[in-house]
Amino acid sequence: MLGEFGRIAKFFAPLAGPGGLGLKDDAALVECAPGRQLVVTVDAIVEGVHYLPDDPPDLVAKKLLRVNLSDLSAKGARPLHYLLVTALPARLGDDWVARFAAGLGDDQRRYGLALLGGDSVATPGPAMLSLTALGDVASGAEIRRSGAKPGDRVWVSGTIGDAWLGLKVLRGDYPALAAADRDFLTARFRLPEPRVALGPRLAGLAHAMCDISDGLVADLGHLCEASGMGATVSLAAVPLSAAARRLMASDPALPVNLATGGDDYELLFAAPQAASEAIAALAGELGLPLAAIGTIEEGAGVRLVDAAGSQISVASGGWTHF
Amino acid sequence: MLGEFGRIAKFFAPLAGPGGLGLKDDAALVECAPGRQLVVTVDAIVEGVHYLPDDPPDLVAKKLLRVNLSDLSAKGARPLHYLLVTALPARLGDDWVARFAAGLGDDQRRYGLALLGGDSVATPGPAMLSLTALGDVASGAEIRRSGAKPGDRVWVSGTIGDAWLGLKVLRGDYPALAAADRDFLTARFRLPEPRVALGPRLAGLAHAMCDISDGLVADLGHLCEASGMGATVSLAAVPLSAAARRLMASDPALPVNLATGGDDYELLFAAPQAASEAIAALAGELGLPLAAIGTIEEGAGVRLVDAAGSQISVASGGWTHF
Repeated sequence: MLGEFGRIAKFFAPLAGPGGLGLKDDAALVECAPGRQLVVTVDAIVEGVHYLPDDPPDLVAKKLLRVNLSDLSAKGARPLHYLLVTALPARLGDDWVARFAAGLGDDQRRYGLALLGGDSVATPGPAMLSLTALGDVASGAEIRRSGAKPGDRVWVSGTIGDAWLGLKVLRGDYPALAAADRDFLTARFRLPEPRVALGPRLAGLAHAMCDISDGLVADLGHLCEASGMGATVSLAAVPLSAAARRLMASDPALPVNLATGGDDYELLFAAPQAASEAIAALAGELGLPLAAIGTIEEGAGVRLVDAAGSQISVASGGWTHF
Repeated sequence: MLGEFGRIAKFFAPLAGPGGLGLKDDAALVECAPGRQLVVTVDAIVEGVHYLPDDPPDLVAKKLLRVNLSDLSAKGARPLHYLLVTALPARLGDDWVARFAAGLGDDQRRYGLALLGGDSVATPGPAMLSLTALGDVASGAEIRRSGAKPGDRVWVSGTIGDAWLGLKVLRGDYPALAAADRDFLTARFRLPEPRVALGPRLAGLAHAMCDISDGLVADLGHLCEASGMGATVSLAAVPLSAAARRLMASDPALPVNLATGGDDYELLFAAPQAASEAIAALAGELGLPLAAIGTIEEGAGVRLVDAAGSQISVASGGWTHF
């Protein structure tokens, strides 16, 4: 087994960008382009808590990177760099690290960013992986959670609840589901598609934005709280995939679960009515469905309503890790 | 026990600086001052590996922050912000977190930086804490490991080996040692003093720099390797504290151990002969001893020599975690 320096040199140094100084220095350098500001986010995952011990290491790496890219995109930022911390038990050998690094390599090419630095330590416990992503945005153009205004429409990208269904499928639910639907749903859980093309394009259009990790209802709740607003969402307007709609045929209560599930990594944003046409045009240009699902209002909290406008009670306000 | 959001709101949000958006957003904002570039570093520690489970949580927090500040200082950067990842087992309750956050609060005031963001997750294993520190330096003025040149003098700040002795004291060695010496040495292990005033002042003076975490000999080896150089160090010139000198009286072989121990968090740098006067003046101004201990040479590797110029064999090239 390679030591710490050997692993860094063999598996991670090839991923390093110019500011990373070959991963041989105490720290890394980040140039700031004039007129732009940096956006920084960090997410950590623990083996057995956020992923399963036998999950493919390349997928674990990609998901870790992608959830951070989703956070950057939710601020309207483009990705530039990342730092990686690995705390690994001795039982995870060089092969695991090689496959993990290969997954990072694939995705950093796909999304156009590079490794800047990190730390690797030993742990007697489960593996813990933490990734800090840095991006940038034109100064003052970042889209915060806190900017929603009364009368704004609430939009989401893509379809909602697929990852929640994918986790259920992986746990053995829906044994009669068609193979294509199973594959689609489990892929949505295992490998989110961060909306990196969409986020930066919403600068000047969206008043407030976040990504959906805790669930649509919970994350909209966070956005409303940060904005000092409330929101009403029409459950019938929440966009569902064909696979989710097929499962809904035998379970009409399913949409509430999909709206409160998590791990969607879609973008959720509030934009003035006047931006609706531009947003619809953007959806066409990017080939990514964008759906208006509700309205920002004075007040507090998120009301979920059915087609008749009656409030639907929500058992869970989303996931709280811990 | 508070949940994840409750702990963030109660203990960590009060530590957040303006770019941290109250720790309520997906990401944080970092402004870049014109003509300056950012410097980023990250270090992770694991309970039972890098600190003891019953170590005071405020000291654990301070050491974690300070080792990162040492890395920034080693590039000539001043500290600005930090991000924090905590992976905590359920047995560590709110009191532990409160004391940990209090330690961070003390030190962020002391060193003039603020919390920018982070992530907190649960783990069934030992606690894992990771801190990413961001600082800045005038563009192009960073001091890399790789710039040492033949004929440069090798300098170190402070005294060497105290932390290594402090760990031995904590493990029960040197039972006859005077209380004042015990306190001094264990404090040097538990709470390093990152040389934040020195690092930025060495821009324009030092050709290459790093901090000493793996041990003087090992870290000088890294600096030499990055620079494509070798070095000779005179063991008699390595500065020792009064406490270390008292222990040396009954153990003449001790200095080799001190030069290969770790956790000093002193700065180690290479500077041209012409800078020696300015460096000596800086030592006086800062009230921090700076000692010339050797010379950079063509070649590779670090030679440790005694007062007669004979090479001393070094058993260990420093610590390798993993």
